[in-house]
Amino acid sequence: MLKDWTFKDGRSDGEDKRRLKALRQELAALQQPIKEAKLPVIVLVEGWGAAGKGSAIHSLIRELDPRFFKVLSVGMPTEEERRWPFLKRHFAAIPQEGKILFLDSGWLDETVRERLRRDLSDEEYDRRIESIRMFERQLTAGGYLLVKLFLHISQKTQQERIRRLEADKDTAWRVGENDRRQNKNYDKALEAFDEYLTATDEPWAPWKIVDGTDAVRSQLKAAQWLHERITTALRFRPQPVLPAYQWPLEPILPLAQVRLDKRLDDEQYQKELKHCRQQLERLHNELYRKKVPVVIAYEGWDAAGKGGNIKRLASALDPRGYEVLPIASPTPDEITRHYLWRFWTRLPKTGHIAIFDRSWYGRVMVERLEGFCSAAEWQRAYDEINEFEKELTDAGMVVLKFWVQIDKQTQLERFRERENTPEKQWKITAEDWRNREKWDAYEEAIDEMLEKTNTRNAPWYILESVDKRYARIKAMRTVIDRLREVL
Amino acid sequence: MLKDWTFKDGRSDGEDKRRLKALRQELAALQQPIKEAKLPVIVLVEGWGAAGKGSAIHSLIRELDPRFFKVLSVGMPTEEERRWPFLKRHFAAIPQEGKILFLDSGWLDETVRERLRRDLSDEEYDRRIESIRMFERQLTAGGYLLVKLFLHISQKTQQERIRRLEADKDTAWRVGENDRRQNKNYDKALEAFDEYLTATDEPWAPWKIVDGTDAVRSQLKAAQWLHERITTALRFRPQPVLPAYQWPLEPILPLAQVRLDKRLDDEQYQKELKHCRQQLERLHNELYRKKVPVVIAYEGWDAAGKGGNIKRLASALDPRGYEVLPIASPTPDEITRHYLWRFWTRLPKTGHIAIFDRSWYGRVMVERLEGFCSAAEWQRAYDEINEFEKELTDAGMVVLKFWVQIDKQTQLERFRERENTPEKQWKITAEDWRNREKWDAYEEAIDEMLEKTNTRNAPWYILESVDKRYARIKAMRTVIDRLREVL
Repeated sequence: MLKDWTFKDGRSDGEDKRRLKALRQELAALQQPIKEAKLPVIVLVEGWGAAGKGSAIHSLIRELDPRFFKVLSVGMPTEEERRWPFLKRHFAAIPQEGKILFLDSGWLDETVRERLRRDLSDEEYDRRIESIRMFERQLTAGGYLLVKLFLHISQKTQQERIRRLEADKDTAWRVGENDRRQNKNYDKALEAFDEYLTATDEPWAPWKIVDGTDAVRSQLKAAQWLHERITTALRFRPQPVLPAYQWPLEPILPLAQVRLDKRLDDEQYQKELKHCRQQLERLHNELYRKKVPVVIAYEGWDAAGKGGNIKRLASALDPRGYEVLPIASPTPDEITRHYLWRFWTRLPKTGHIAIFDRSWYGRVMVERLEGFCSAAEWQRAYDEINEFEKELTDAGMVVLKFWVQIDKQTQLERFRERENTPEKQWKITAEDWRNREKWDAYEEAIDEMLEKTNTRNAPWYILESVDKRYARIKAMRTVIDRLREVL
Repeated sequence: MLKDWTFKDGRSDGEDKRRLKALRQELAALQQPIKEAKLPVIVLVEGWGAAGKGSAIHSLIRELDPRFFKVLSVGMPTEEERRWPFLKRHFAAIPQEGKILFLDSGWLDETVRERLRRDLSDEEYDRRIESIRMFERQLTAGGYLLVKLFLHISQKTQQERIRRLEADKDTAWRVGENDRRQNKNYDKALEAFDEYLTATDEPWAPWKIVDGTDAVRSQLKAAQWLHERITTALRFRPQPVLPAYQWPLEPILPLAQVRLDKRLDDEQYQKELKHCRQQLERLHNELYRKKVPVVIAYEGWDAAGKGGNIKRLASALDPRGYEVLPIASPTPDEITRHYLWRFWTRLPKTGHIAIFDRSWYGRVMVERLEGFCSAAEWQRAYDEINEFEKELTDAGMVVLKFWVQIDKQTQLERFRERENTPEKQWKITAEDWRNREKWDAYEEAIDEMLEKTNTRNAPWYILESVDKRYARIKAMRTVIDRLREVL
């Protein structure tokens, strides 16, 4: 995309300036429609060092209301940030609906720099590109407008700019080592940029190459493109096509066929509990040292015994190295962002364990059945969730998912017991009874979920929990076995 | 507090174990009352290296529901964290009401380590202690229960433990350089700990020294203390006494005496605007390089012109180095924490500018007048806010506060204009009209606020905004003058 580019001479004139000024007003006028349409906008401004990325953003925001936008200057990840998968910090930064986020460089710059530095092998680079394509596609499908600009200048222009910046002590600090290296190895960088742009140019999130030779003209081009993309998105939002995935699915029994008569007597239970605790303690130590992050997701029927199960598992772990994350209804901050945002932001760092008490699977259970999302949304969520989990396991995370299973009669008994026990009454609400009425619809949804997301890299495990002791030991044993495999 | 300590021999027996087990159940039974009383609890577990802090926390949480507590292992601040005032990361971690946060080391460990390493001068150490006393007092006044434990062991015990840990490859990594250094310089560390404990021992947040020689006994002591503190807090919450502050207040005119006839004609305005922009741009560059963080808070009447004022000021700044933070009603996450939490967590890092569109002064205006907080709460807020701002300026931040002033008639005209202009109708709501009815009560509250918080280190500036152009230029000039003073 860059290789066949011809830089045109031509300097901006008064007419360009007038048009730019008018466009800024038009962009400002779009704020209210953006807000009303609840459109979240991400404007990714990438390009060569000294191409004028900062000035372009400055020019674009000039007439905007600061309450509607945010500018983020994205540097290379810090040591701390490297303790999470690559996409985590980018996912964490996405705006709420009705807001615009301007990024001064982003995942392009990070990826190409790492590639040129040889921090990424060819294979890692290919995987990275896949992650980025997935990320941009998921955002678009989730209603985000992604506007991608690349500011392009020639080697000569870049060299002149760097020299001019360096000559003035007020601006010399703006020139980084990377800019100089880029200029020296311009052709190699050009090739890397070109390859990246080609690989991530999609109809729903196309790249716009902007000639950065003349500041006003490039700002004008950027503003025109942004204006066009926003007005289009206000008319209709594209729905990207999901790749035809062949997930590495393992077969799994429907819930109706799960045998629930498994039992442990108290003596066995106490013995096993002690034994599992010791092993888990040792393994937790080891994964902490080896910096392996672990995600354990719990889902299950109301009153199936998730809480007690999590408690027993957690009691064997070093409290400095794990966290239990109860997932309730989304907060206003969460509901106005992509549905996976609140999980991306809660991922464990290297060496840590995150236990999710309910999880992203809410999308294909409660959100599906209560109509909190559209059919198209929950239907594509299986793939999106598989992609999400693949990102985690590709980054070296261990991902386990537990379904805590009981039958309908057992649930009824436990509900009644809760109602009749004063200390437990808070655990039972009218909503639990309402959910119970939809048991069959839930069971159907759960079977579909188990079948479509039981991937080899992030498998489901059924915990038969009519006897809670049995389920607790099985959970601990499962974690022990998985950790042994990876450590 | 540590110096006259006698370590008792005596090993734990079966009876101790039984009592510990029973206490854990009692702690679990307190969770529901804690939730109902909306009590936020912070359990700070400090002490010598290898004294058993992790095991103590492990023991305390054993029977707790993971949804109600969180364990945080607090290390030394990262490079990134050092870009904010010391208290920021600790304030950011405070729990919501009804939840318990266990801290495995915290601000004691950080402070004493830095002192022993000579990273803190005597003067800095004294200031640090004042910050910590303020922090703990503000939290307690805000309804937080602070439980502070110090696990004490002798030099010999510590040495034995370090050796035992080092001998086993599974645990050797747990021994840090700091532990060895501490053991070698035990007497010096003892003195530093002792001094810190004495300086921060307050009736509302007393230290409990726990003999860590025997694990079970120390865990029992810790559990007893925690149980006692929680049951006491459930009966009544102490209200700490504020120091008798003499703030360095500057006199300020009541709003009624502010002259609102100041004007700028269009020619002057355009000329000044251009001039100010250039200067601000240069100064922003400079503060970025010198890593000075800046906080600018905007308050003012509805329709006074805050938004436009902020926009003009912001348009002169490099978008990579500033952020506009609109402050609306608190979210559920915010309303269930200390009222300053949402401002502590939004502070700019070094070299960055944060412009708050409304601020922490909501406490003494809208929250006071709408009854969202008690009289005692808003009355002590003046001191708390002065303390907060002092923390910022002591840490090298520049803090400026703008009050955007108009008269009642001007507001009426602007409200009517908004109602009659389709693109502006969203800016005017029934609430604005309701607030307007309380103009006199607000004016009284604002005068009191200006008078009590116009400190030399974080002064108020009145922006006369009947002529918005005048107010915009005055804001820019004020920022320019303040930045010139400090750079």
